[in-house]
Amino acid sequence: MLAQMLHQRGIDSVVLEARSRVHVESRIRAGLLEQGSVDTMTESGVADRLHREALVHHGLDLRFRGQDHRVDLSGLTGGKAVTIYGQQEAVKDMIAIRLAAGLPLNFDVDDVAIHDIATTRPRITWRQDGAERVLDCDVIAGCDGFHGICRPAIPAADLRIFDRIYPFAWLGILARAKPISDELIYARHADGFALATMRSATISRLYLQCAPDEDLATWSDDRIWGALRRRLGDTLEQGPILQRGVTAMRSFVAEPMRHGRLFLAGDAAHIVPPTGAKGMNLAIADVRVLVRALEQFFARQGEALMNSYSATCLDRVWKVQRFSWWMTQLLHRYDDGDAFEDRIRLAELDYLIGSTAALTTLAENYVGLPYAG
Amino acid sequence: MLAQMLHQRGIDSVVLEARSRVHVESRIRAGLLEQGSVDTMTESGVADRLHREALVHHGLDLRFRGQDHRVDLSGLTGGKAVTIYGQQEAVKDMIAIRLAAGLPLNFDVDDVAIHDIATTRPRITWRQDGAERVLDCDVIAGCDGFHGICRPAIPAADLRIFDRIYPFAWLGILARAKPISDELIYARHADGFALATMRSATISRLYLQCAPDEDLATWSDDRIWGALRRRLGDTLEQGPILQRGVTAMRSFVAEPMRHGRLFLAGDAAHIVPPTGAKGMNLAIADVRVLVRALEQFFARQGEALMNSYSATCLDRVWKVQRFSWWMTQLLHRYDDGDAFEDRIRLAELDYLIGSTAALTTLAENYVGLPYAG
Repeated sequence: MLAQMLHQRGIDSVVLEARSRVHVESRIRAGLLEQGSVDTMTESGVADRLHREALVHHGLDLRFRGQDHRVDLSGLTGGKAVTIYGQQEAVKDMIAIRLAAGLPLNFDVDDVAIHDIATTRPRITWRQDGAERVLDCDVIAGCDGFHGICRPAIPAADLRIFDRIYPFAWLGILARAKPISDELIYARHADGFALATMRSATISRLYLQCAPDEDLATWSDDRIWGALRRRLGDTLEQGPILQRGVTAMRSFVAEPMRHGRLFLAGDAAHIVPPTGAKGMNLAIADVRVLVRALEQFFARQGEALMNSYSATCLDRVWKVQRFSWWMTQLLHRYDDGDAFEDRIRLAELDYLIGSTAALTTLAENYVGLPYAG
Repeated sequence: MLAQMLHQRGIDSVVLEARSRVHVESRIRAGLLEQGSVDTMTESGVADRLHREALVHHGLDLRFRGQDHRVDLSGLTGGKAVTIYGQQEAVKDMIAIRLAAGLPLNFDVDDVAIHDIATTRPRITWRQDGAERVLDCDVIAGCDGFHGICRPAIPAADLRIFDRIYPFAWLGILARAKPISDELIYARHADGFALATMRSATISRLYLQCAPDEDLATWSDDRIWGALRRRLGDTLEQGPILQRGVTAMRSFVAEPMRHGRLFLAGDAAHIVPPTGAKGMNLAIADVRVLVRALEQFFARQGEALMNSYSATCLDRVWKVQRFSWWMTQLLHRYDDGDAFEDRIRLAELDYLIGSTAALTTLAENYVGLPYAG
């Protein structure tokens, strides 16, 4: 996404990818795009297939105390919506566009390392097809995810880490089954949280709250469907399970997001729990800020936007962290025996569905807060 | 308040007060009334002096990161406001009205006990002027505060208690000094929370976050003013301190609020931390529900509203508990080393001041949620 937006502005870049094209094109990740993410992708010329194939959602369902409450996202936000489109589909589209344009995108690179990031001439080294490679850069964008090599290249003394591990995880499945609803269902249930979403009109994506160390081997198909139907309702259609996995729940922020000529973006700098569906969207928001900073820099108009990059991004990052934490704690079962907080969370849900203002706070965060500047 | 509302409806009651008239008329308590509380007092005929003397506030100030942000309460709630009027002033007015009408109001009663509350003929016994007294009742209203005798009269097995003790308290003073602002200032400061409010144009009421076991003896006037000025600003006018004390911070709910013919109302059933200024308002809301239930009962129209009394009250109680907890945790300094939650709270404040919807949630709770029914 960043490479494409830079290319549109006449700025050259090289993309290095540790995995294979097949791997990144089939790796299932996020699937919900904010209005602004779709708009950004559209402006960047990578959203043609998205507009043909994606599902646009104007609302979602909150289910608690055994009742459904529809949240009219579009009605509450002046017409904004969210779009269901798998991250790997967006990745496929962007790879195809970049390769068709003959722009550098190197898969299967090994031993990537970054050097001299505190200087004005940082370097990247890696191995490819057995050969040692070096790239002298003006700027390095660390878009290499939570487990990437960029964040660890910043001296630990220069980073402040904020972290929250949740006492639960999600057991997720992809199933060939008609989705239970046209929209997402977020369910708070005595057994724990459940989420019903979809990839298409025939593929369901379903999640169950489980233990952080849940052993997938103990979850037969029957047990999974039984648990899902208890939490989401007997009308849930079953079908072959195509994929299953356990997703950890974590909030993480590294500050600042820039060190010299290295700029972190997306999961390299921050992780959100998936409840608010914000991970990919926050990465796109970072990239928007970075593109403007690099545009200014390469037009020899100074480094003001590079210098404000971290603070500008972090303002949104923390608001999105707050929303993701809020959605997470509101809807999950806690087994810590804190009956007071449990009632507070139920009271918040009761208040939420009765207050247009409170529903609007949910909706405006869910469809995406306005971008800065 | 309950006695007055019942009197208006032709229902007799006897009020028993353990303390002296002088004591309850001078005891400083809450001082901020929701729009609905003022409306209820006006309809009940006890608000004449209030309307002459009270201060009406249409907004409040939130101060954090060194900046002031005015919250336009009236603009955000279709014209609602809050009213500053000391609880003891409202108590004075209601005592005078009741005594002028020749209605029973017994001060200085000793050894009050309630009996047979699970029957249809509960009794109250007490001693007064050395004599043993007995009152046979249809209904007992337990409006006797957190430390009263009514809640403990309910068998422990029939009550569920929800409780939260906060790791801080408020050091409060009443001072003869011009208030720093026409409206309340809620300040989040690195030193801790501070609140600037007032009783009149010449009397300031000021609070500082302190330790739960703070020793007042270590707080000279100079130390108090120094701490207040650091948190609230050098323009804070100083003056003689008329009263000082430490207010504990606690959230507490006992469920249900009814046992047989005993109905708990106000602090007897629930305590909120003072940050949201909800204690007196919640008591008035309980009383409104109880009056309707008793009106139905004494009109021999059944016990439906008596049976729903607890659930109706608790719906509001928990929403108000949520708001009071939210205001409290948002604005206080926590020394628990949880840097993530601290940033989440700052992000919530940043989000709040930038979102009309979020400000509206604050405003609509602060001026008071609509009453049920």
